[in-house]
Amino acid sequence: MRIGVLTSGGDCPGLNAVIRSVVHRGTDVHGDEIIGIEDGFLGLIEGRARPVSHDDVTGLLTLGGTILGSARVRRDRINWAVENARTLARNLGIDALIAIGGEGTLTAARMFSEAGLPVVGVPKTIDNDIEATDVTFGFDTAVHVATEAIDRLKTTAESHQRVMVVELMGRHTGWITLTAGMAGGAHGILIPEKPFDIEAVARMVEERFDRHKKFAIIAVAEGAKPAPGTLRFDHGEVDQYGHQTFGGIGNRLAHELEDLLGKEARPVILGHTQRGGTPTARDRVLASRFGWHAVEAVHQGAFGHFTALRGTEIRLVPIVDAVVKLKTVPEDRWLESEAVL
Amino acid sequence: MRIGVLTSGGDCPGLNAVIRSVVHRGTDVHGDEIIGIEDGFLGLIEGRARPVSHDDVTGLLTLGGTILGSARVRRDRINWAVENARTLARNLGIDALIAIGGEGTLTAARMFSEAGLPVVGVPKTIDNDIEATDVTFGFDTAVHVATEAIDRLKTTAESHQRVMVVELMGRHTGWITLTAGMAGGAHGILIPEKPFDIEAVARMVEERFDRHKKFAIIAVAEGAKPAPGTLRFDHGEVDQYGHQTFGGIGNRLAHELEDLLGKEARPVILGHTQRGGTPTARDRVLASRFGWHAVEAVHQGAFGHFTALRGTEIRLVPIVDAVVKLKTVPEDRWLESEAVL
Amino acid sequence: MRIGVLTSGGDCPGLNAVIRSVVHRGTDVHGDEIIGIEDGFLGLIEGRARPVSHDDVTGLLTLGGTILGSARVRRDRINWAVENARTLARNLGIDALIAIGGEGTLTAARMFSEAGLPVVGVPKTIDNDIEATDVTFGFDTAVHVATEAIDRLKTTAESHQRVMVVELMGRHTGWITLTAGMAGGAHGILIPEKPFDIEAVARMVEERFDRHKKFAIIAVAEGAKPAPGTLRFDHGEVDQYGHQTFGGIGNRLAHELEDLLGKEARPVILGHTQRGGTPTARDRVLASRFGWHAVEAVHQGAFGHFTALRGTEIRLVPIVDAVVKLKTVPEDRWLESEAVL
Amino acid sequence: MRIGVLTSGGDCPGLNAVIRSVVHRGTDVHGDEIIGIEDGFLGLIEGRARPVSHDDVTGLLTLGGTILGSARVRRDRINWAVENARTLARNLGIDALIAIGGEGTLTAARMFSEAGLPVVGVPKTIDNDIEATDVTFGFDTAVHVATEAIDRLKTTAESHQRVMVVELMGRHTGWITLTAGMAGGAHGILIPEKPFDIEAVARMVEERFDRHKKFAIIAVAEGAKPAPGTLRFDHGEVDQYGHQTFGGIGNRLAHELEDLLGKEARPVILGHTQRGGTPTARDRVLASRFGWHAVEAVHQGAFGHFTALRGTEIRLVPIVDAVVKLKTVPEDRWLESEAVL
Repeated sequence: MRIGVLTSGGDCPGLNAVIRSVVHRGTDVHGDEIIGIEDGFLGLIEGRARPVSHDDVTGLLTLGGTILGSARVRRDRINWAVENARTLARNLGIDALIAIGGEGTLTAARMFSEAGLPVVGVPKTIDNDIEATDVTFGFDTAVHVATEAIDRLKTTAESHQRVMVVELMGRHTGWITLTAGMAGGAHGILIPEKPFDIEAVARMVEERFDRHKKFAIIAVAEGAKPAPGTLRFDHGEVDQYGHQTFGGIGNRLAHELEDLLGKEARPVILGHTQRGGTPTARDRVLASRFGWHAVEAVHQGAFGHFTALRGTEIRLVPIVDAVVKLKTVPEDRWLESEAVL
Repeated sequence: MRIGVLTSGGDCPGLNAVIRSVVHRGTDVHGDEIIGIEDGFLGLIEGRARPVSHDDVTGLLTLGGTILGSARVRRDRINWAVENARTLARNLGIDALIAIGGEGTLTAARMFSEAGLPVVGVPKTIDNDIEATDVTFGFDTAVHVATEAIDRLKTTAESHQRVMVVELMGRHTGWITLTAGMAGGAHGILIPEKPFDIEAVARMVEERFDRHKKFAIIAVAEGAKPAPGTLRFDHGEVDQYGHQTFGGIGNRLAHELEDLLGKEARPVILGHTQRGGTPTARDRVLASRFGWHAVEAVHQGAFGHFTALRGTEIRLVPIVDAVVKLKTVPEDRWLESEAVL
Repeated sequence: MRIGVLTSGGDCPGLNAVIRSVVHRGTDVHGDEIIGIEDGFLGLIEGRARPVSHDDVTGLLTLGGTILGSARVRRDRINWAVENARTLARNLGIDALIAIGGEGTLTAARMFSEAGLPVVGVPKTIDNDIEATDVTFGFDTAVHVATEAIDRLKTTAESHQRVMVVELMGRHTGWITLTAGMAGGAHGILIPEKPFDIEAVARMVEERFDRHKKFAIIAVAEGAKPAPGTLRFDHGEVDQYGHQTFGGIGNRLAHELEDLLGKEARPVILGHTQRGGTPTARDRVLASRFGWHAVEAVHQGAFGHFTALRGTEIRLVPIVDAVVKLKTVPEDRWLESEAVL
Repeated sequence: MRIGVLTSGGDCPGLNAVIRSVVHRGTDVHGDEIIGIEDGFLGLIEGRARPVSHDDVTGLLTLGGTILGSARVRRDRINWAVENARTLARNLGIDALIAIGGEGTLTAARMFSEAGLPVVGVPKTIDNDIEATDVTFGFDTAVHVATEAIDRLKTTAESHQRVMVVELMGRHTGWITLTAGMAGGAHGILIPEKPFDIEAVARMVEERFDRHKKFAIIAVAEGAKPAPGTLRFDHGEVDQYGHQTFGGIGNRLAHELEDLLGKEARPVILGHTQRGGTPTARDRVLASRFGWHAVEAVHQGAFGHFTALRGTEIRLVPIVDAVVKLKTVPEDRWLESEAVL
């Protein structure tokens, strides 16, 4: 078969590992030809694609980013593409498509499948917020990078009797912050699912200082918000460039804590370092398994499905809204973190 | 309550994280007193123990090894201890015990529970070979270390057109080798579950050289064995000191491949670097969750059970032989590795 | 002898390694008693100190931060302390002092020596800006952390055809930015010593895109400034909390480049992650050697001197203003970087 | 000019960074054409070479190994090549050669220069044993890898009250072992320059146990030897395959210590992991500076010289036997290590 593959949405460690695995499995075992579509759905629409051979994926297992590129596409152009799915597939000469991306991509994948371009999805989100799979690749790497940063910040905080506020990724869910916060031993963990009371945070810090633990690390998700009725401040806008402004939660929180505590508080915003670079071993393996099973799914005709990890097994899950709904941090996971405020 | 905690068996990154979590949860939330028993069951028998406070576990999250120590105890002494379980518990003044260890420890834990010393188990094996849990802490760290080593060896192998044979841990199961081999992109993966034909390995290497990929990485588990009827060589004994002799599978395999191929082959034996040092973020979190749930299990009276990860949840599993039976690499996981010989 | 030791100024990986080395060399070889003075000169003034034994420094080699703490002291209090040097020394019962700190600390060290409290200095600056020594400990670690971040950002920049602006430490000198920029392969390196022309930076990026290298990494020191007469913008203030404001050079530069280029540009500010955590091997060794030689200097009576690396040797250098003057990036080092704009 | 470049001898992190830097400086600034010669002097003799463009070196800064390959060449073939230097240069159409390699390569470089093929040398040795330069690239990476391994082994040694013997690279000099041993806090450091008395090593370990530090790490260079008149054992041969035999110093030492002490002792041989993989930031910068200056040297006509680091500057040093004589660990550096036995 001629199988197209595209990567869509934000960067995520493991994308290249999926592409490599698709090529290895497809070409070596099934004799498929793999067509790499450039810049996600944009390349599909504009007919920009190239064959990807076994040699082309040499070294991709450890390489961050995506050799196919990725670009944002407006919803209306996606809809146009769905209406012309058969034509686009014919133009590229592909029998099926493997689409690697987040919720939007998976939803589009289902629409394309129904419109005559058979698609298998591979879920991709750094935030690990897709309900149907235990975990997504890239998440472990993001947590690894964030944890290393917290490890480094701890000794400085302790030496200078400081509060360190580390802002981590997660606009809508707190998985990275909860996990890296637990792994780094953060004393406060603030996530979107649990609006926080900054005075409670300040009290926790003061109690630590009273116990002669004269420092504190607060891990805060970029989407965390103060609880209604508590001391308020803006969540922090993103300006017209998409840059995080001064009002970003990490900067704001450090300010407010310094005011409330009369102690030094410093913000650190890790930003894009969390989503680039070489994947962890775990993410390389998960991404490779997803690619392997996506090719099998194509040959089984399991279109409109995407690959998911359930326990230790990879399963194929039908793409329906219910499946790709946001996976938030449940109460019991939150309670497991020792940093309940 | 007064809860004893002990660590038993070989070193495993995350042991200290479990101890820390047990102390945090037990003392902060339940008002328990945690008694650290030294050198595993030996300290239980000899009555060597000390209270472990919140301050005592500061910094343990990132520290490899175990502050409680660990020692081997002969089976007959364990049996004696079981017969005297009540007395030993009274001597230490503990109401319950959290035992962190491998299959032997969990089996002993059940026997102690039945004999009147209520025990909750926490599974610990670098090899990830316990059936009842998706994964054990320490495994991810071992895979991380092994993968970093394979990453480093690859460039040398390629520059010098060499075969590199990396011997990884796993006497009875191939989980570390399969996972690190996939994560590192090894071209051959040899595990105990799949007796290998060295001539098939040699052919794979030659085919790579014919395709102008003039190097190869072979990941081999210390317990891997040649298939009956194939070119044979000793598995490699462990001498009276417990040292791996010249006949270790990694060294032997490199020799034989050099003979068969007439190409340079070099062995690297990672050994103990795989089981020491700071845990990965994933292992820190899993170990912390196990400790948290072990304390809860004690307060729920779920004795004779151990903590297990199922998907994303921690469950309490009854300790029975069926549960702690060896988890080997199944055929379908083996097939997922692209390095099928 | 009874030798006091204190750490002063900002955090720097290797401080604990110096303390450990001072204790090992002093107690084991010379039979000295080492007195750890808390919170730098503040502890000296307030008489807060404790003996530090061989056991107390176990594990310090790899530990970031300083177990002695560090605090800022107003110049007038330092002057008061110098006037009362003999009394303060008598109060603590110390015969000599080893002071580990930056330019201010070394200057104070000389004043104390002249006032009757004999001091040997150990230079400490993350910025590597002390003229008399080839390098200072902590610098290699800062460069290591910054380089890992640039490595990670590169794949994202490439996948999304973006400009990434990485702001690194260095208010007055560009050593960290020059070195990490070269190590990470940054395409633009902006340092305080070389006021930049943002339009030249923009042209360099455009030329890369024209050559189908559709991404760029700009490493910018926090103290870098635009050249007079070029497109101007504020350097970016530090607010009353010492927080970097929206106007920080990294954020500002990303904005301006986005305007000039009409391409996505993203800022990443590494901040305190550069100065905490476990030191690199090189910094551990340099710090240990400095501690070793500081103790020898005390026993040789080389007071008013500080330890310096010259080539491969440790030398004792007299503390005079000329010696501790700022070491800036010279023209020829700048030209060596391939990223001349 | 048309400048040939070749890499010779064993693998060393930073080789590709030199090649990249030579291409960047040569092509971008001087308009040179860079000709990559394959497999070291073998490619020179056999006329195997290819132009290396700016695009060809993309991504090389972080890549271990050498894209040009490296092979051993018998001395008599080198001599033949020297006699035919002019012809070989004409065949490849090169005006000058940049040869990156160890002592043998530099000596050959001088002979080629005198025979009419002008050569500039770049020193390359993982062992850092070239007298004329403060340090060589690759060394810092080897020390980094070895130190990480010692860090990991320590916690296991402590938890199990064990002696760990880590064998590191260095057949003739102890630089890697001394430096990584100091960085890792090894309790014994055994190097070729200091024949050791194993009974003194055993006493040191026993004294540690008596002081209740119930573990020890011994770092031993592969070329370390017992002192005459002390308890003897073979240094450990290398068999016909170049494999380290059972008698390797690490294995042997662990055995003997176990006998002498009656305590568990375990060997770990790091082997090739020390010389492969991505270079540290320091090595990337040093390698890049060497490449930059090698190109300048060619254009200055400084043939028969090689690049050397002196303090913070790169200097050009004439290749004479005196210059490339072995740099061994001097007495005073040895004394700086706290682990004097």
